[in-house]
Amino acid sequence: MSDRKPELRRDPISGRWVIISSARGKRPTAAMPRQEEESPEARERCPFCYGKEDATPHEIYSYRPDHSRSNQPGWKVRVVPNKFPAFGIFPEVFIRRFGLSQIATGYGAHEVVVDSPDHDRYFEHQPLDHICHIVDAWWERNVDLERDPKLRYVLIFKNHGKEAGASLRHPHEQIIATTIIPNILKAKLEYAKAHFINGEGCIWCRELDQLYLYEPTIWNPDGSVFLETRKGDRIITENSHFVAFIPFAARMPYEIHIQPKYHQYSFIETTPEHRCALAQILRDVLLRVYKLLGNPPYNFYFHSAPNLNISPRSGEFRTIKDDFHWHIELLVRTTIAAGFEQGSGIYINPIDPVDAAHYLRETEI
Amino acid sequence: MSDRKPELRRDPISGRWVIISSARGKRPTAAMPRQEEESPEARERCPFCYGKEDATPHEIYSYRPDHSRSNQPGWKVRVVPNKFPAFGIFPEVFIRRFGLSQIATGYGAHEVVVDSPDHDRYFEHQPLDHICHIVDAWWERNVDLERDPKLRYVLIFKNHGKEAGASLRHPHEQIIATTIIPNILKAKLEYAKAHFINGEGCIWCRELDQLYLYEPTIWNPDGSVFLETRKGDRIITENSHFVAFIPFAARMPYEIHIQPKYHQYSFIETTPEHRCALAQILRDVLLRVYKLLGNPPYNFYFHSAPNLNISPRSGEFRTIKDDFHWHIELLVRTTIAAGFEQGSGIYINPIDPVDAAHYLRETEI
Repeated sequence: MSDRKPELRRDPISGRWVIISSARGKRPTAAMPRQEEESPEARERCPFCYGKEDATPHEIYSYRPDHSRSNQPGWKVRVVPNKFPAFGIFPEVFIRRFGLSQIATGYGAHEVVVDSPDHDRYFEHQPLDHICHIVDAWWERNVDLERDPKLRYVLIFKNHGKEAGASLRHPHEQIIATTIIPNILKAKLEYAKAHFINGEGCIWCRELDQLYLYEPTIWNPDGSVFLETRKGDRIITENSHFVAFIPFAARMPYEIHIQPKYHQYSFIETTPEHRCALAQILRDVLLRVYKLLGNPPYNFYFHSAPNLNISPRSGEFRTIKDDFHWHIELLVRTTIAAGFEQGSGIYINPIDPVDAAHYLRETEI
Repeated sequence: MSDRKPELRRDPISGRWVIISSARGKRPTAAMPRQEEESPEARERCPFCYGKEDATPHEIYSYRPDHSRSNQPGWKVRVVPNKFPAFGIFPEVFIRRFGLSQIATGYGAHEVVVDSPDHDRYFEHQPLDHICHIVDAWWERNVDLERDPKLRYVLIFKNHGKEAGASLRHPHEQIIATTIIPNILKAKLEYAKAHFINGEGCIWCRELDQLYLYEPTIWNPDGSVFLETRKGDRIITENSHFVAFIPFAARMPYEIHIQPKYHQYSFIETTPEHRCALAQILRDVLLRVYKLLGNPPYNFYFHSAPNLNISPRSGEFRTIKDDFHWHIELLVRTTIAAGFEQGSGIYINPIDPVDAAHYLRETEI
């Protein structure tokens, strides 16, 4: 497997090209950045621990099975505004253009979901029922933020580890809501719409079909292509609602996608049962990553459809519920995007997606 | 300056949104990753030092003022194929599509330009006339690679420091030539063409006009906008052929663009005089970065027009010489692209571009 020549692969949804160059491949754990120790001072200052509720702005949401008062200990999951928000809150939204420059007010929301009072217990090491409460907190905030029709996109994401951009160690996720639809989403929406209108249905549903069937590979120096029956070789794990897999054109060895097995346009569509299944698969995947790669830094983010609770204009999103399929992208930071990736948008992935899925699938949790 | 509220800015060419949030701003040197020490073993193994010419594949180009024989000491600048190329060399180019998957053979070139025999002297610390020879080596290889009509894009780039993806310490740059036009370039080409056809001329020429004139800023909580005359406040340095500046919607504090002051579609169009001016401004900018930020990791890459030495098809590139303007993007790695940036493509820049340019302009070299 690892001896074949490099292949260029194109991601069907983003259109991104990737070089799968497993001749450059390393063993799964090679050259992995490790988490640094935290200083006692930083630990002491942590604003997310019990008894430090005053160190954050007032809480927006909390899970308190003992019905304790807000902004006091007793919470199990807590959501607060980010103390250093990326967005200021202007009362109104303005977008102006002058010459080539376009400028807008930074209206938006920026919130932090604190996983638990435990400073040292990672998300994936929480008991499953607790993870369900965390996922519920994400969902509650997502639904609530979409009540504001000025907020056109809500992005839920996690940074784990300093090399993945986490500035605080205490396990948490973040939610940013913006007045613009991010370009990456816009491109996905447009591509998905074109695919749908073309009569081919939801592209993510088709991607799942293909995941269970076959895929092409170039084996020979003359460029001849084989179709291999793979029987889900890129799948890491699945449950009745979700599947976790490495995409055909993964940008990095451990780019992992988690997606509902049936069509759903947004995370806000999920029921409590779906959310518990999501908690289960997220925990499962992250435990495998932790065990196989030794607590590497990672990011994940949700890609749902944009907020549909907006005044309809020009039918922009008429087909969105049919053509968009929400999903999570998890990026383990084992490689650095260097000059070539930054300058071209082409990624060089040194591990074959089938091998990476195999390593994770075989990891015992 | 630094107290104003966050602004969303849109880059006119990529369409990328950026949040300029200088309330989160830090002093220029804060939280900068430092270069790590190199082990004596790694130093000993370096394949780019004098007397190790056998450790690399045979050289493709060298600058040898003493007319010494190739693959022997005596060279001052040396270009060799990458020993671990991202691309294998297939004899032919194939692109195939099956279902959603698109796959191509990895035909291409991957070369390394070794700056000098000196393991420890950084690019910017070389004498100016030596840097001219390095820039000439880039140009010679660029021109030569474009003789192959299968290679549609040539990307010259540099990774400096481990955190910027450099795996070898000995100062060098890389050149990758691909059979596809990278998506980032495709988007720029399309945008530039539309702008040109719209009767507004080259968008990079317009950007330079605006650089010397005025720019909009949102100052008030009611969203009112002021036009300020700035007299080139975002310019770092310039010479008769090039200008180096921080773009209006810079993704990170020290995103620096270097671009010819007059219209030129590709680096291959440059004369020896242009290349010496480029060597001068690159050295100038990198010395400022080194002094201000303390040897930070950085990447830079060239964005020229694609190879025009191809069989004409459907007039795809008919206007390219008029609408594309080549330039260099230099990214100092002071911030990490975390979950939000990865998931949205929106960057949060904690330092106002006018401030960043000011810090660099005031740095003595």
